[in-house]
Amino acid sequence: MDANEIIRRCRVLAEFSEEPGVTNRTFLSPPMREVHKLVRQWMEAAGMSVDLDAAGNLRGMSGSGRRPLMIGSHLDTVPHAGAFDGILGVIMGIALVEARPNAPIEVAAFSDEEGVRFGIPFIGSRAVAGTPVMDAPVLEAIREYGLDPAELNYACAADCIAGYLEFHIEQGPVLDELGLPLGVVESIVGITRMQVIFHGRANHAGTTPMNARRDALAGAAEWIAAVECEARQSAGLVATVGQLQIEPNASNAIAGTVRASLDVRHASDRMRERVVENLCSAAKGIAARRGLTVEFVPLLEQPAVSMDREMTRVLKRAAAPAAHCMVSGAGHDAMIMAERIPVGMLFLRSPGGISHHPDETVLAEDVAAALEVGVRFLDEWEKLDG
Amino acid sequence: MDANEIIRRCRVLAEFSEEPGVTNRTFLSPPMREVHKLVRQWMEAAGMSVDLDAAGNLRGMSGSGRRPLMIGSHLDTVPHAGAFDGILGVIMGIALVEARPNAPIEVAAFSDEEGVRFGIPFIGSRAVAGTPVMDAPVLEAIREYGLDPAELNYACAADCIAGYLEFHIEQGPVLDELGLPLGVVESIVGITRMQVIFHGRANHAGTTPMNARRDALAGAAEWIAAVECEARQSAGLVATVGQLQIEPNASNAIAGTVRASLDVRHASDRMRERVVENLCSAAKGIAARRGLTVEFVPLLEQPAVSMDREMTRVLKRAAAPAAHCMVSGAGHDAMIMAERIPVGMLFLRSPGGISHHPDETVLAEDVAAALEVGVRFLDEWEKLDG
Repeated sequence: MDANEIIRRCRVLAEFSEEPGVTNRTFLSPPMREVHKLVRQWMEAAGMSVDLDAAGNLRGMSGSGRRPLMIGSHLDTVPHAGAFDGILGVIMGIALVEARPNAPIEVAAFSDEEGVRFGIPFIGSRAVAGTPVMDAPVLEAIREYGLDPAELNYACAADCIAGYLEFHIEQGPVLDELGLPLGVVESIVGITRMQVIFHGRANHAGTTPMNARRDALAGAAEWIAAVECEARQSAGLVATVGQLQIEPNASNAIAGTVRASLDVRHASDRMRERVVENLCSAAKGIAARRGLTVEFVPLLEQPAVSMDREMTRVLKRAAAPAAHCMVSGAGHDAMIMAERIPVGMLFLRSPGGISHHPDETVLAEDVAAALEVGVRFLDEWEKLDG
Repeated sequence: MDANEIIRRCRVLAEFSEEPGVTNRTFLSPPMREVHKLVRQWMEAAGMSVDLDAAGNLRGMSGSGRRPLMIGSHLDTVPHAGAFDGILGVIMGIALVEARPNAPIEVAAFSDEEGVRFGIPFIGSRAVAGTPVMDAPVLEAIREYGLDPAELNYACAADCIAGYLEFHIEQGPVLDELGLPLGVVESIVGITRMQVIFHGRANHAGTTPMNARRDALAGAAEWIAAVECEARQSAGLVATVGQLQIEPNASNAIAGTVRASLDVRHASDRMRERVVENLCSAAKGIAARRGLTVEFVPLLEQPAVSMDREMTRVLKRAAAPAAHCMVSGAGHDAMIMAERIPVGMLFLRSPGGISHHPDETVLAEDVAAALEVGVRFLDEWEKLDG
């Protein structure tokens, strides 16, 4: 299977959607059956024996002898998705089995990473890592798909695989701007998510003089500027206010309440925590000066995750000199697998940094480069593991 | 009728609502029938002959001889309204007829000022000023209420009244902060309303480094701060950004587009126009620096309106020393009437500056003071007009 065939297969799978004309395929949704059928055929054609586990992960085994290396990613998508986020990592796994049919490899096609259907991400990899999601609606969906939630524990592979390798598009502009095809991921950022709520006093935009206002949106705006400023001063950090809920949100009324989202990410947990602290202090200072009150609602506190040092070393050697060593700003199945298993991760350049969008793409030359790196990695890994 | 009775009648009318438990009464809505019935009774009890014109304005005539002074305001409300916005001015008119039964007075209870039902304000006063709203849904509502749109032109009073006097709650904090019961309005501000649209690039909040972002919300936030700063430096000016529409408005996505409302008001049209120009320049500068584009959609350009100099002089003398001379930051029926007729306007203090809210109120002592001012005005007006 060459790079063009890998890309073609990704595009074929993008046709299976809950919504005609766009790609939208959530956890165990109807189009997932067609996708499972096709991926199973491709796995079997590559000589694998295939099983669908109780979390809806399609798993193909190849080779024998030592504990296998798991290569995988996810088959679900966001709404209005591109063709490569997740899917590419699965097809890359099958291509590597074809390239090294005797290597002990398990290809894992996870059922859910995006969390769109139930607002719970990583349903697939969490089952394989041995920490399955047990929420009632998820179990019900598993049952409806014809699987047995009682067998979820059997999906765990933590003790029977030697490592986990994931190929994934970068979904950001870093490699594209560097003009490099590949990136070796050294760690996945930690994330703080919270809601920062500014309370002021809603009032008439015409009859309330400037000095009598307690404008929650003016306060939030000042704070958004402070968030951007603090993030720009902190190397490698990203901080985003992407969502505001404004009340009453009318053109002739001063805003009484603004609920702002805050998303802060960095490879160092300490750095991230310090910046979050600074941003909360800034919000308090701005609120106090303006006669507003501010409230913080923590939503997520996810520590950074390091890739396995040894796997990453082998990956870097296999990828040199075409690869950039980098941090992943987004969560991936590798992050979940890293809880129990040594993991390595290779990024492929995202042209234009575009992802979660129908225009998401990959270059055939980058896929070819990734395939070569994968083969070199497998050969090196065999020596180490053997 | 004393101040307490005026307040009681306002509170009685607040019970007639499209929604139980709150006050919500739009143009010719079902509860308006009950309100018309009651106000007609009160007018007739004060000795007036009463007519409902084709725009749904209830009009009571008293006295004879010279051209009457029209005293009025509106009977419609915003959703979740208080009891006094508009209504108070109508009841004050009836109270003044009772106090001076021989004075030639027409009390006008306008059908619509807030514009809630059709997004078209001043339907009532525009018909009386001779520029009736002719939009099809408005005409249909008039027909449904049992009135004849063909008679709209007969509603015009521009040539048969000597002046228009309006009592209205301030709906702002100025009088309350000055500790004064009354305000003589010298002019009503001009208003510029526009939408300012920042276009950037939506992107992943985790994978897009700070220096690769074109964050429309960060740009809008910087501009909101500039709007506030410019307004604070311009005496008597108010500028408000009260509404944002953000796309995609997700906590994990950089904003691609932000549509911001802008509302700028001042008694001087030249001053307002200069500030609007500065704010547009600021938006362009911010956008250029950030790799955004900005677009301006004009929505409203309403010049300031001066009250009649002679009526205002008489009002001031009648109100001294309890009254503050001031600018109205909100539009009122008086603004429409001023197109054709000499107008005067008296504000009553809004405790806490609260309006368009169930807590909106007036003090009985302020209503009593306004009533006295009204009587003194009528006596002085008679001398002038006679």
